[in-house]
Amino acid sequence: MIAVKIEPRKPGGFQDFSPSVMIPRQQVLDIVRSVYERFGYLPLETSAVEYYQVLTGGESTQKRIYRLDSGSGDDIKALRFDLTVPLARFAAAHWSSLPHPFKRSQLGNVWRGERRQRGRYNEFAQFDFDCVGSADIMADFEVAQVIWTVMCQLGVQRFTLRTNNRKVLNALPSYAGFNLALIDPVLQALDKRDKVGREGVLTDLANLELATSAIERLEAFMAISATDNRQMLTALASLVGSTKIGEEGVAELTQIVEYAEAAGISQLVVDPSTARGLDYYTGPIFETFLDDQPEIGSVFSGGRYDGLVSKFSDLDLPATGASIGVDRFAAVMVDLGLFKERSTLADVLVTRLDRALDGTYLKLAGTLRAAGINTELYTGTGKFRDQRIYADKLGIPILVIVGPDEQQNGVVSVKDMRSKTQVTVPQVQLPEEIQKILRG
Amino acid sequence: MIAVKIEPRKPGGFQDFSPSVMIPRQQVLDIVRSVYERFGYLPLETSAVEYYQVLTGGESTQKRIYRLDSGSGDDIKALRFDLTVPLARFAAAHWSSLPHPFKRSQLGNVWRGERRQRGRYNEFAQFDFDCVGSADIMADFEVAQVIWTVMCQLGVQRFTLRTNNRKVLNALPSYAGFNLALIDPVLQALDKRDKVGREGVLTDLANLELATSAIERLEAFMAISATDNRQMLTALASLVGSTKIGEEGVAELTQIVEYAEAAGISQLVVDPSTARGLDYYTGPIFETFLDDQPEIGSVFSGGRYDGLVSKFSDLDLPATGASIGVDRFAAVMVDLGLFKERSTLADVLVTRLDRALDGTYLKLAGTLRAAGINTELYTGTGKFRDQRIYADKLGIPILVIVGPDEQQNGVVSVKDMRSKTQVTVPQVQLPEEIQKILRG
Repeated sequence: MIAVKIEPRKPGGFQDFSPSVMIPRQQVLDIVRSVYERFGYLPLETSAVEYYQVLTGGESTQKRIYRLDSGSGDDIKALRFDLTVPLARFAAAHWSSLPHPFKRSQLGNVWRGERRQRGRYNEFAQFDFDCVGSADIMADFEVAQVIWTVMCQLGVQRFTLRTNNRKVLNALPSYAGFNLALIDPVLQALDKRDKVGREGVLTDLANLELATSAIERLEAFMAISATDNRQMLTALASLVGSTKIGEEGVAELTQIVEYAEAAGISQLVVDPSTARGLDYYTGPIFETFLDDQPEIGSVFSGGRYDGLVSKFSDLDLPATGASIGVDRFAAVMVDLGLFKERSTLADVLVTRLDRALDGTYLKLAGTLRAAGINTELYTGTGKFRDQRIYADKLGIPILVIVGPDEQQNGVVSVKDMRSKTQVTVPQVQLPEEIQKILRG
Repeated sequence: MIAVKIEPRKPGGFQDFSPSVMIPRQQVLDIVRSVYERFGYLPLETSAVEYYQVLTGGESTQKRIYRLDSGSGDDIKALRFDLTVPLARFAAAHWSSLPHPFKRSQLGNVWRGERRQRGRYNEFAQFDFDCVGSADIMADFEVAQVIWTVMCQLGVQRFTLRTNNRKVLNALPSYAGFNLALIDPVLQALDKRDKVGREGVLTDLANLELATSAIERLEAFMAISATDNRQMLTALASLVGSTKIGEEGVAELTQIVEYAEAAGISQLVVDPSTARGLDYYTGPIFETFLDDQPEIGSVFSGGRYDGLVSKFSDLDLPATGASIGVDRFAAVMVDLGLFKERSTLADVLVTRLDRALDGTYLKLAGTLRAAGINTELYTGTGKFRDQRIYADKLGIPILVIVGPDEQQNGVVSVKDMRSKTQVTVPQVQLPEEIQKILRG
């Protein structure tokens, strides 16, 4: 009919997710969502398309944002690169009608045009939760608590929730004695510790031409170690507590630790080396590491960012929250063996040996579904052998088989594809029989 | 800190969905998903971005597709305008490794740059399910059955699943005696019957300069009425059954009706006036109307489209499926009173009267959540009055209140915001008490 075939190409850097990846991902996301809901973070969905000017906050940006061929000047439209700027735009625009504080979750795709590298894609999903409009440290603690609850509900046994406070880091110039202008490169250097080691960090610091005394003090800061959070807080106070900002940071860290104790969260660890990006966070910071795979980095991170929403509003709208990179997070849960890749959720395939018996097949499938059993009726044109291959390929464990003989006798054959056993039961007993087999 | 405020503008034609809209929508989508899964339609997620050339099938198009500022020539990237073309691209590219037939569902946004009009947006969500690779009429019937099951599971009482067959319509030129080239405008005219009435259709047909005899025969076709499907099939056979294509169409309709009878679907009605678009469908067609609001049109539609996947493959890959326009569908379910707009899913707000008691508040909230009760702890900075306003605004029905007196006595006050009653119970009995109040 159509002469010219179009090659079914997909742009590089963009991904498809097959059912075998999507099934465990949905199971993970359902649990995440239920935790977000339990704590009162309700779903918001914002447009995927924003004004370019809103996305950049009117500033020049290093970010590679995809623009659409629609609009011009101030009306250029573009795809969002995260869910936080759209939240800020939404909260600022609707603040007077929203509950205060405004707690919301959002699951959605974001797009970044960065050049491709391994494990980085131009489109990926995030699942965020945030609280806008509260400067209360309880809002920050709740971020940690939600992360912790998600990890526990997913069944992750061994993880650590590292926390730090941006204010502690902001105290470093005056503590160590270097120019405030150098704080970003200094923190970048400190943040690379997991990757390059202590020596690597010292080399980087030396390259910044810091005074020897400053490097020594930063070395002391890096070398802080403690057997528990209280000891760490004492050590931090003795180093940076003499500055106002450092004192504030230690006080906030202390409050977070106290709340964690009250709430029974034992996996929270104060870690002054956690820097969590650079110019975005303003207070508490949280990162989540798997104890057995620290090398994959934080799988669930967040913190306080008090400046962002105010870009769009004359009001002071502090905010705190955290984000999951969905693709990697779900993959990690599968790697941990907590969720399984599966190609189907069907327990039963009702095969069709004889089209004259389609009415029977429909009734049997209907009875099984009504009993809560996920049941496929074979809708293809293949013979029985093809139907068996279909079930095998998908991993459907049970075949239901009725031929003219079975039909005449009012029975049905039930084949367990795993044990390769087959039984014949009266048609009316089918749901019961299937449930027995599924229970094992 | 930041001097220039950016106006929090959102592009026209794009929408935000607040929690009050998203909560019932998610409830609706959860049920839809569970039905899709029960029938074996497993989730696929394809990239939102496709090559422009793939989206258009290499043909010129009337569709206004958003292009990205990325790629050139054959590599121009663009946002998908539906979920069917991406499915076709995916199925064609991966056919050899997929199960046959390939049954999948997909929930996702699509983008269309059409000029704005009331109720039409440039971005909207669809929730599709399709079966690729089977020409079996059972695959078509299952489309009807899934639609029917979704409607029943959602609690819709009064709806009609109208079905027709494109082959019956394709028989009209030879039945009525008009040029095959006029079939599209003729069907467009017939399709407008619900809007413009029988007289309006006749006027449109006359404007096409059809012969009087052709108009008379189309009038007879439009005038077919029957008290049940069997009678309708007989009437249709007598009109268009003399052509091969018409005979095939009536035979397929008959098979669908027989399957519906076997599966106990009484809401299926053969309606030869259902045309369901023009050049896309090739066989059975389904539309779902609410009996009490037929004027809003079909809320869940689909049918067979055998040509699409083959645009991307040398293989013959027939396909059938259906699609929900999520925004409108969820809104309709709310209008029907089946789902409620709510601003929260929280049952309890644990208030904070005294920051010194934060440990107690955390413990009480934790106990409630562990008992499966959606519980918010107030994370804002407001006084008790603000906290009550917050609960009121969100519609959280129960306040938990502990001040220094309650704390000293080991009790907690529980306020029912609906009945304005308040009781005081021992802290250890809190979950029990809340559950009692929630049960009403």
